[in-house]
Amino acid sequence: MRAAVMRDGRLEVDDVPDPVPGPGQLLVRTLACGICGSDLHTLHHADHMVEMASVAAGGDGFPGQPMRLDADVIMGHEFCGEVVDRGEHADQHAVGDLVVSVPITMDASGLHAIGYSNAYPGGYAELMVLSDVPLLTFTVPNGLDPELAALTEPMAVGHHAVERSWTTAADSAVVLGCGPVGLAIIAALRLKGVETIVAADFSPARRALATLQGATEVVDPRTEPAVEAWRRVDGRRRLIVFEAIGVPGILDQAMADAPRGSQILVAGVCMEPDRVRPMLGVVKELNIQFVFGYDPMEFAETLRRIAEGELDVAPLITGRVPIDGVPDAFEALADPEAHAKILVTPGR
Amino acid sequence: MRAAVMRDGRLEVDDVPDPVPGPGQLLVRTLACGICGSDLHTLHHADHMVEMASVAAGGDGFPGQPMRLDADVIMGHEFCGEVVDRGEHADQHAVGDLVVSVPITMDASGLHAIGYSNAYPGGYAELMVLSDVPLLTFTVPNGLDPELAALTEPMAVGHHAVERSWTTAADSAVVLGCGPVGLAIIAALRLKGVETIVAADFSPARRALATLQGATEVVDPRTEPAVEAWRRVDGRRRLIVFEAIGVPGILDQAMADAPRGSQILVAGVCMEPDRVRPMLGVVKELNIQFVFGYDPMEFAETLRRIAEGELDVAPLITGRVPIDGVPDAFEALADPEAHAKILVTPGR
Repeated sequence: MRAAVMRDGRLEVDDVPDPVPGPGQLLVRTLACGICGSDLHTLHHADHMVEMASVAAGGDGFPGQPMRLDADVIMGHEFCGEVVDRGEHADQHAVGDLVVSVPITMDASGLHAIGYSNAYPGGYAELMVLSDVPLLTFTVPNGLDPELAALTEPMAVGHHAVERSWTTAADSAVVLGCGPVGLAIIAALRLKGVETIVAADFSPARRALATLQGATEVVDPRTEPAVEAWRRVDGRRRLIVFEAIGVPGILDQAMADAPRGSQILVAGVCMEPDRVRPMLGVVKELNIQFVFGYDPMEFAETLRRIAEGELDVAPLITGRVPIDGVPDAFEALADPEAHAKILVTPGR
Repeated sequence: MRAAVMRDGRLEVDDVPDPVPGPGQLLVRTLACGICGSDLHTLHHADHMVEMASVAAGGDGFPGQPMRLDADVIMGHEFCGEVVDRGEHADQHAVGDLVVSVPITMDASGLHAIGYSNAYPGGYAELMVLSDVPLLTFTVPNGLDPELAALTEPMAVGHHAVERSWTTAADSAVVLGCGPVGLAIIAALRLKGVETIVAADFSPARRALATLQGATEVVDPRTEPAVEAWRRVDGRRRLIVFEAIGVPGILDQAMADAPRGSQILVAGVCMEPDRVRPMLGVVKELNIQFVFGYDPMEFAETLRRIAEGELDVAPLITGRVPIDGVPDAFEALADPEAHAKILVTPGR
């Protein structure tokens, strides 16, 4: 099959052997797979991802064995596919079903993180192998476009971030960064009933998407810092600051800006060591909640929200590429003005 | 009056003018005042304290104007005294009453942090001025030794830390550092009904005090890391890690050691910038809660607990010095084996 392979720190499009579904597994033809910012980072700093997985092994944060970088990895963990074959005992889904899945495949050797595994290909390939298990793989409700269904994964990240935060409908929120994670958070905040959602991003295009997803105020942080904008439009309710950028320095800046007693929800994935001033946290009694991923019920709920139109994810899709276009798409995503989410659509 | 004065970055014992109580204020003769680790730090890094207060000014974390370092400061904020005079309209307490107070004095110009103010002396002096206000200044219950009452302030810090954490009786705790703050946390955890309290300190003397305050397991972290000891003796309950050391590197170490989904309660006051690896928080979905001080009701409750014998603070008092002995006491406190809490007792 055709696949965009991470090999020696580069993306190469190549023909690789078709995967074969084992017991309890489905063979799925990839219909759409979003390119995630983490994949861009992983391509250039795969060592960070491996170190992270190793660190987390003791705390069971990351499923499966860390990937090896001296062997091929096919990334892509935001996908929707059609079942084309089934292994033994795989009877939860039928051939022809459209499915999305939490990006984990199980086999006798344990769990494997789809997209960050040497054993199973991710969605930047024509075929994938999924576990046919109720809490991992879900049928796409009848009629939902697979391109929209592929956004279940990134939107679930935002849903989880909001659920793990202090947020109630009585609170207010600042969202730092309007990439896909920030936009997913904004959409989840709106569904939570939050009335003041201030979103900050350098990019006018992303700010426009933030407004579409439900931000009530958008700012260019070069013109007006987000928390200052929050003081202007609200300033009264309890504040949760969602950090959805994930570069060094942002956490400290959020701590400096956050009002006393507020929470900083860290959804950005900063893989490098960072510098903070703990006194900022101390004197303001800040709370910092780090989040990662989502649980299966949050994933399922997000799929339902997309299918029922509660989440309008179509505007997030700014491009489509075949597998041969994946390397160029990675380059194109460096420009936040041009893109939010590019889908890899192998079949089109 | 006699006072130990912070002047040009050094402690000097000197005679200074007696303070005069204004409207709504009490003049109090200092009976006992604990020396706090923050005061040791402030003496050598007063710039940190001033910077902290300035930073917090926007977030209203620290009461009053930051102190100026080009003028005298008399530190000491853990005190008990006897009312010897009253200003106008000060009718909540009578001459002869023993009182403790949240270390804040109010006047027409606003709030002043006793012990970190140019306007009002702290407890390293023979006389102090307190606000005669119900939620700041409390009568010491009849018969309680003023030396024990002086420990209300540091013990309230521990009470607050536990109250602001996730801790319930069903949780378990690790306490990093058994100085006065760590010991106060241990005592509050015990009163909360926590059954597994693992305490870590390099000093055998402090570990012995930790056991007295209620730690169920004490470790020398050079021999066995605290979280490893927790896995040995518990490892099942939700864990809250209390950081009561406050030096650079400890937060990152706590993040590396903490199990997935746990909370790190930062009660240590690290005034320098610090390096953390955010990925440790991300992959384990850690929660970090910073705390500072206590609220007046927690202060009052702590006084009650000491007066009724629920907190046994006498073992924490390892030395007493007159005002002239304050500079030497600051030196002596550098040795954790020799001391936990030294009281300044001007009248003895």
